[in-house]
Amino acid sequence: MFTFQLQHTDPKSAARAGRIETAHGEIQTPIFMPVGTLGTVKGVHQRELESDIRAQIILGNTYHLYLRPGLEILENAGGLHGFNGWKRPMLTDSGGYQVYSLSAQRKIDEEGVTFRSHIDGSSHTFTPERAIDIQRIIGADIIMAFDECPPYPCDYEYAKNSMELTHRWLDRCVKRMAETGGKYGYEQTLFPIVQGSTYPDLRRKSAETIAAAGQPGNAIGGLSVGEPAEAMYETTDQVCHILPKDKPRYLMGVGTPENILECIALGVDMFDCVLPTRNARHGMLYTSEGIINIKNAKWKDDFSPVDASNPCYASQQYSKAYLRHLMHTKELLGPQIASLHNLSFYLWLVGEARQHIIDGDFASWKEEMVKRVQRRL
Amino acid sequence: MFTFQLQHTDPKSAARAGRIETAHGEIQTPIFMPVGTLGTVKGVHQRELESDIRAQIILGNTYHLYLRPGLEILENAGGLHGFNGWKRPMLTDSGGYQVYSLSAQRKIDEEGVTFRSHIDGSSHTFTPERAIDIQRIIGADIIMAFDECPPYPCDYEYAKNSMELTHRWLDRCVKRMAETGGKYGYEQTLFPIVQGSTYPDLRRKSAETIAAAGQPGNAIGGLSVGEPAEAMYETTDQVCHILPKDKPRYLMGVGTPENILECIALGVDMFDCVLPTRNARHGMLYTSEGIINIKNAKWKDDFSPVDASNPCYASQQYSKAYLRHLMHTKELLGPQIASLHNLSFYLWLVGEARQHIIDGDFASWKEEMVKRVQRRL
Repeated sequence: MFTFQLQHTDPKSAARAGRIETAHGEIQTPIFMPVGTLGTVKGVHQRELESDIRAQIILGNTYHLYLRPGLEILENAGGLHGFNGWKRPMLTDSGGYQVYSLSAQRKIDEEGVTFRSHIDGSSHTFTPERAIDIQRIIGADIIMAFDECPPYPCDYEYAKNSMELTHRWLDRCVKRMAETGGKYGYEQTLFPIVQGSTYPDLRRKSAETIAAAGQPGNAIGGLSVGEPAEAMYETTDQVCHILPKDKPRYLMGVGTPENILECIALGVDMFDCVLPTRNARHGMLYTSEGIINIKNAKWKDDFSPVDASNPCYASQQYSKAYLRHLMHTKELLGPQIASLHNLSFYLWLVGEARQHIIDGDFASWKEEMVKRVQRRL
Repeated sequence: MFTFQLQHTDPKSAARAGRIETAHGEIQTPIFMPVGTLGTVKGVHQRELESDIRAQIILGNTYHLYLRPGLEILENAGGLHGFNGWKRPMLTDSGGYQVYSLSAQRKIDEEGVTFRSHIDGSSHTFTPERAIDIQRIIGADIIMAFDECPPYPCDYEYAKNSMELTHRWLDRCVKRMAETGGKYGYEQTLFPIVQGSTYPDLRRKSAETIAAAGQPGNAIGGLSVGEPAEAMYETTDQVCHILPKDKPRYLMGVGTPENILECIALGVDMFDCVLPTRNARHGMLYTSEGIINIKNAKWKDDFSPVDASNPCYASQQYSKAYLRHLMHTKELLGPQIASLHNLSFYLWLVGEARQHIIDGDFASWKEEMVKRVQRRL
C-alpha cells in the first residue's frame, strides 16, 4: 500500500518532487509535517489543519502519547486517528529523542532504555520491540525506528557506539514489524534512521546500513541538535547521496525556512519541526518577505493584514496591530492566529518549492527565497 | 436607526421575543452576548463567532480597551470593528464595573472616578463625559451609561447615595451623547443602567428614573455580584415591571443557563456573562442535559462527541475523552474547544427560548430546561 513515486528532479540541484501514497491518503513531496506532540497541533483545530493550513500529514509523539493519554485509551479509540479525529496520514517518532531530552534518570543498555516520566517520575522501559508495538497502537501510517539520538557535540567513540547500537536496534525493529500486522487493518510502514553525529565516516556507514535495510522510506536523525547549519547541510548532502533515490527521505526536526529550502535542494522530501508553532507562541512570524517579531512597537499601528501574500484566513483576516495587541495582552487568540499563519506559511513554502521543481526553476527561486526568508522586517 | 420591535409575548410569563436593528445589523432577542473584554472572545476566532457560535452581538470592555491597545490605536483602526474585524453589532460596558473591581486606589467623587491602572499603576480619570467619548471612539453600537456599581452586600445609605450619583451621572451621559455624534458615521445608542442594590424602594426609584430618561434601551446593573439567586430574580422582576415594554432590557453580567432562562421569563431581552468562556477554560461544559466537568475520570474513555445534541463543529467533531486529555495536558486546543462549545450552547439556549416564546410554550419548556441544565453529569 505504501508507495513513493518520484515525479520530477531539478536539473540544477538534487531537489525532487514526488508522491507518497498511504492508507490515509496521498502526500505530495517535498512536504512539511506539523508537529502534534500530544495528539494536537498546539492552538489549531483539525479542520484548520485541513482547510487553512492544508496539512497533508501530521506528527504524533510516541513518548508523550504513551504517557498521556496512555495506550489503553488510544487503543480503545481506534488509534490516534480515532482519538483526535485527524483523517489524513500520520507519522510518529519513536520516542527515542524525547526519552533523552525530557525524561529523568534514563539508563541505556543493549536491551533498550529505562527512564522516569517527566510528569510523575514513574519508571518505564522502551525497547525497539516496545517502540514498534506502541506505534502500532497509536496507528501511525509511518512508524519510526527506535534509535539513540546522541547530543552535539559528541565524541567519536560515543557517536560510533551509539550508531552501532541504533543499527542493532533497527534489526529488532524490522523483525518486530514483520512479526506484527497493521493494528487497525491498514498498513503501517517503518522508516529507519541514519545516525553518526557529524562524522563523515560514521554517517557513510550508517547511511549504507540504513539503505541496505530496504525499508520503504528512510530518515536522517541526529541533526538540528545544535550543530552549525553548514554541518547540517554537509551531512544531509552526504547522506542523501547514499540513500536510495526511489524512496522518500525524511530529515527529522528541521528547521527554519532557509534550512528547509537548502535541504530540499539536497534531496530531502519530508520535514518536521516545532519552530513554526513554538515561535508563533512567542510572536515570531515567518513570511515570504522575512521574519516579523510582532511584539515590536513598529507594528502597533500597522493595520495591514498579518501577511497579505498568505491566503490563510488568519493571515488575511487579522491586522498586525491586532495580533500585536493580542500577544501583548497574552490573549489565547494571539498564539492561535500566529500558529495558523506560520504553519500555513511553511506549507505554502514547500508547495511553492514543489511547483518550482516541477517547473524546472527551483534552484534560482531557492537562491532568492533563502535570502528573503531570513530578513528581519 | 436603532429600533426595537416587540414580536411576541409569552402568555404564561413575561418572556418576550423581539428584534433589535442597529447600524451593524439585526439582533434577535432574547440574546446572549459573548464577552470580548480586550477585543477578543478568548480562544475564539471571529469567523467561529459568526459561523459556529452564531453570535449576533459581542461585548467590548471600555476599561480594558482604553488601557490596551489605547484610544489612539482604536481610533486609527476605525474603532474596534476595524481593529478586530468583527462585522456585526457590538456593545461596550462603560468601564465603571472594572474600575471598581480591578483598579487600585480608586477615588470616587461627584466629577467621576480617578484610578490607577491594574497593569502599570498609571493614573487615569473617567467621568461620565469621558466614558461616552471613549465608547464613541471604540465605536460600539450600544454604549452603556457610566455608573457606580456598588458591592453586595451594601448598606442602605451607600446604595442610596450611589444610586443618586449614578442618576446624576446619567444626565451628564445623555447630555454628552446629544452633544456628540456617531464617531464613524453610524448611530451609537445609549443604554442607562438601573442601580439600587437589592433595596426594593431604591430599585423602584432607579427604574422609574431610568425609564423616564427615555433612551432606546435600558439595563439592569448591580446584580450577579454575589447576592442570592432569589434576590436577583426578585429585583429583576420588580425592575422589568417598571421599565418600558417597548424597549429592550439588558441584564448585565448574568449568568448561568438557569439564571438566563429565569430572567427571560421575567422579561429580560439581553444578557452577557464571562461564565461560558471562563468556566470552559477550567473544563466545565454546559449542555442541554446538564453540566460536565470534563476533567473527571469518568470521561477518560468516553469517545462520544463532546455534546451530540449541539450542532457546533467543536461539540460534534471532538470526543469527551479527547477534550479531557487536552485539558489534562494543558493544551491550548482544550480551552478553544470548550469555549466554542459553551458559547454555542448559550446561543442555542437563547435561540430555543426565542422559538418557544414564538410557539407559545415557553413557560413549560423553561420549567423543564431549568431542571436539566443544573444537573451534574
